[in-house]
Amino acid sequence: MKFARLGTPGTEIPVLVEGDRYLDLRPVTSDVDGAFLESDFASRIAAARDAGELPELADAASMRIGAPIARPSAVICIGMNYAAHAAESGSEPPTIPILFLKTPNTVVGPNDTVTIPRGSVKTDWEVELGIVIGTRAAYLDSPEESMAHVAGFVAANDVSERDFQMTVSGGQWSKGKIAAGFNPTGPWLVTPDEVDHQALGLRSFVNGEPRQDSNTSDMIFTVEHIVHHLSQYVTLEPGDLILTGTPQGVALSGKYPYLAAGDVVEIEIDGLGRQRQEFVAWEARR
Amino acid sequence: MKFARLGTPGTEIPVLVEGDRYLDLRPVTSDVDGAFLESDFASRIAAARDAGELPELADAASMRIGAPIARPSAVICIGMNYAAHAAESGSEPPTIPILFLKTPNTVVGPNDTVTIPRGSVKTDWEVELGIVIGTRAAYLDSPEESMAHVAGFVAANDVSERDFQMTVSGGQWSKGKIAAGFNPTGPWLVTPDEVDHQALGLRSFVNGEPRQDSNTSDMIFTVEHIVHHLSQYVTLEPGDLILTGTPQGVALSGKYPYLAAGDVVEIEIDGLGRQRQEFVAWEARR
Repeated sequence: MKFARLGTPGTEIPVLVEGDRYLDLRPVTSDVDGAFLESDFASRIAAARDAGELPELADAASMRIGAPIARPSAVICIGMNYAAHAAESGSEPPTIPILFLKTPNTVVGPNDTVTIPRGSVKTDWEVELGIVIGTRAAYLDSPEESMAHVAGFVAANDVSERDFQMTVSGGQWSKGKIAAGFNPTGPWLVTPDEVDHQALGLRSFVNGEPRQDSNTSDMIFTVEHIVHHLSQYVTLEPGDLILTGTPQGVALSGKYPYLAAGDVVEIEIDGLGRQRQEFVAWEARR
Repeated sequence: MKFARLGTPGTEIPVLVEGDRYLDLRPVTSDVDGAFLESDFASRIAAARDAGELPELADAASMRIGAPIARPSAVICIGMNYAAHAAESGSEPPTIPILFLKTPNTVVGPNDTVTIPRGSVKTDWEVELGIVIGTRAAYLDSPEESMAHVAGFVAANDVSERDFQMTVSGGQWSKGKIAAGFNPTGPWLVTPDEVDHQALGLRSFVNGEPRQDSNTSDMIFTVEHIVHHLSQYVTLEPGDLILTGTPQGVALSGKYPYLAAGDVVEIEIDGLGRQRQEFVAWEARR
């Protein structure tokens, strides 16, 4: 199944995406949130659909696309999870997952405009596979238990300000990860049965020119490893978002310029859809 | 004004604390959350109180005390904000605030039992002054604007697992800050008019023996400085919790043992109340 949320920020309508049809899910749920994702949503939707209770949303094509999940209770990120990105960042590949956090209010729609923060000179892009948690997970006994707690996958852009991240917070990265709009997510939440999550091409583009081009098969720590590992340190809640790290090809490498006002970033992951963000100067938003 | 939340986890009743009386706030608000804190709550409460609409909660003394705020959208922490604690941690005092995050699901009641995580050998305590945001703050122009966005203050224990924090996450601290129950908060949310927030004694005790004993006057970066600074990097939301750092006297210093099952930690801040947590082994919670 593929979910999306359409409409103005804060009042998005949950929909089921079937090809180019958008079925209104409001007869089943008010939102694609933790309560929905931990429920037996597949059978509930199937029953409502078979009963003809899910009307087609006629004006879907003209509506804004929101993040495909409601604001999560946590956004947990894995750093340096592709060896070639660790190398371009000047680091050794990690031997254990590196965890840092973004604030949940960074999560926005996949095509929303992103404001370059005041004072930024190093705003950068990062295409990442996102895991959405379905049921609470704590102290899992093995990686084999992980997928039972995963509701689905999303594409995400872990937008980063490298100066804020690396030089003005004593080495703690989060200060460069939490500006408003720094986590475009979606367009779709896709259930695990529809993708081979460890074999997905993921790419990014700036003004149409290719930047990142890799595959989730290059991840150092797999989805199953990450969920099991994190569950030893934090209680994962339904609806939480886990970003699994970005491959090589970001501006931090020195190969490409950082983002400037007017730049357009596109990211895409096989089966999870494509995003497009225009980046604008901070002044423009006043 | 002093607020508390009393009752079982997830269904706490919001109350106004007046001496040893607890006035039920449910005629005014369903919770002490962001929507309440950004409203004109003082005049709303005064009007309801004058009209005799706030009944006294009779069995308050026997009820569990929850965190005095609903689960926030973000818990933002400042590291190394007391020079003597930076020294005992082997670091220079920072010249700019160090930011890291905890997950909001760590926030629990001030006297709730805390589980020492599976595999932990370095669980530590940290008494901290907590700032609760009242109204959204982004890109404040000066520290003088900060207090207009602060709803009040709380006591908090920023419980930390030093091995998880320092050695198994590539230097990113959050992995040791986010275990379930690692943020006892309260007992009270106290509005700014009731405390001199930069002149509050704050102390911790383990099994009745003194550990930390300092004053918020020793903070390197003041409350006003912190709120202004953070607002340059993140949008602060109503109800968000900011922990302002801990003074010297934690186990990380090498002077005291780390916590073991059966230990009792107490923390207190002048005017903000006192907490008491029993720490238990992970096995005990199954």
